[in-house]
Amino acid sequence: MVPLNLLPEGGVAEYVETGHWASKAAEEASRYGRVRITASSKDRNYSYIPPVPFPEKDASYLHITTNNTIYGTRFIQIPDTGNTPLVADMSSNILSEPMDIGKFALVYAGAQKNLGPAGVTVVIIRKDMVGKHRSSTPTMLRYDIHVEHGSLYNTPPCYAIYILKLVLEEVKEKGGVAEMFRRNLEKAKVLYDFLDQSRLFKGTVDPAVRSLMNIPFVTGSKELDALFLKEAEARGFINLKGHRTVGGMRASVYNAMPIEGVKALVSFMKEFEAKQGKGA
Amino acid sequence: MVPLNLLPEGGVAEYVETGHWASKAAEEASRYGRVRITASSKDRNYSYIPPVPFPEKDASYLHITTNNTIYGTRFIQIPDTGNTPLVADMSSNILSEPMDIGKFALVYAGAQKNLGPAGVTVVIIRKDMVGKHRSSTPTMLRYDIHVEHGSLYNTPPCYAIYILKLVLEEVKEKGGVAEMFRRNLEKAKVLYDFLDQSRLFKGTVDPAVRSLMNIPFVTGSKELDALFLKEAEARGFINLKGHRTVGGMRASVYNAMPIEGVKALVSFMKEFEAKQGKGA
Repeated sequence: MVPLNLLPEGGVAEYVETGHWASKAAEEASRYGRVRITASSKDRNYSYIPPVPFPEKDASYLHITTNNTIYGTRFIQIPDTGNTPLVADMSSNILSEPMDIGKFALVYAGAQKNLGPAGVTVVIIRKDMVGKHRSSTPTMLRYDIHVEHGSLYNTPPCYAIYILKLVLEEVKEKGGVAEMFRRNLEKAKVLYDFLDQSRLFKGTVDPAVRSLMNIPFVTGSKELDALFLKEAEARGFINLKGHRTVGGMRASVYNAMPIEGVKALVSFMKEFEAKQGKGA
Repeated sequence: MVPLNLLPEGGVAEYVETGHWASKAAEEASRYGRVRITASSKDRNYSYIPPVPFPEKDASYLHITTNNTIYGTRFIQIPDTGNTPLVADMSSNILSEPMDIGKFALVYAGAQKNLGPAGVTVVIIRKDMVGKHRSSTPTMLRYDIHVEHGSLYNTPPCYAIYILKLVLEEVKEKGGVAEMFRRNLEKAKVLYDFLDQSRLFKGTVDPAVRSLMNIPFVTGSKELDALFLKEAEARGFINLKGHRTVGGMRASVYNAMPIEGVKALVSFMKEFEAKQGKGA
């Protein structure tokens, strides 16, 4: 929807390529105008966040993906884009840490990570970004239509929105995003601290930009990775398999994962490590 | 999505205008090509189903809306379109009566009436209709992408799909669409029979094409309509207000409404009628 609404015919948009979804977003945009990849971490399998050059004057917007689900990196510092609108896909870390929303012209986030059930997407759009769609944009994909009709142009996904409301109320009650951030830092630290000293497991990304939501790790041996995954599953640790482009394992620790879950995983990892004769 | 997938650049599509949604569909299509309204019941406020002329050879498809939610009419006979693909919006009466799906090249239906919660749309597409999209169609709106990825190209609305599965299982268990049809005929008859003999209330559409799902009726007096709605609501009959373009009342009796609900409404209508000095 972003290019169809913000990229005029013959326009150019800048994209920062930090992973699978960032790449997909750029690819889709390139069907509707010129796309400039101004920064990329593809050269080292998206294991870091590249410095983002200040956008050129002709860019309609600059697009980033604040957290990269598959690769486990996140933007620690939001790039300064001056007067160029900054657009962000926050699907996998919205509500996990405080964000200065004022820096963004447009934020979108699928609900299915930290907000609620799959099937609803939250959009936060700055007023001056509304109404810039191209004439061929399908009515249902126009931000101005949704703004004008209070998000009720079509029959909305009521159940997903209701659950989202309950999640927001619970987050607020528990201390808001600041408290989610405190918990997420604490949770991630348990796993990262272990990875940093482990003789068997190691993280796969630049420690400076580690995600608080998705923590990939490997043993360095495909056979051991497979054995670990098998034994982990037998003990109830499921969905730990990493994406095929990274291999190994990935622990997703969204807001809903309690610290006990992370501690249990680390304890199992220690046990596995000891069995491999590599324990402390 | 239909024109973006089936209407080539410079192509022409035929639309039958039988109500609000039919009209909206034609309007959206006219943004992407030439639209021919080959039949319309707009002249008498959509209170009947017009005869549908055999499509001309240049038409990429012919579009109908099998049930018209707001106006309360339905196609009793599916038009013969020969080799021209027949496309139908079945949102408000899918699963309510047997349909010869083989007659349609493409059927789409929002789940929120007879299938499950809002937030998922069912599409039944004939194989030869897949892959005819225009080059500018957004990836997420291409039928071929969804077919190719088994409806899992994006994170699907899992909860809505799960409930839809439960609804389908329940319908099957209760006797399938044939049994739903029997029940819906029985339910609608209770209300239509009353309307046909009432001295106060009357139906608004051609009796030959009455909807089994949406039954609009009026007293003929705006004041009495308003009074009826007020008293009905006090007795727990809610959402009976008709659409502003029809006025009066509308009883929606989707699959989920038991016959007891319809009987209770009719009994209240009789009581109201008697109070107005028009009872039998």
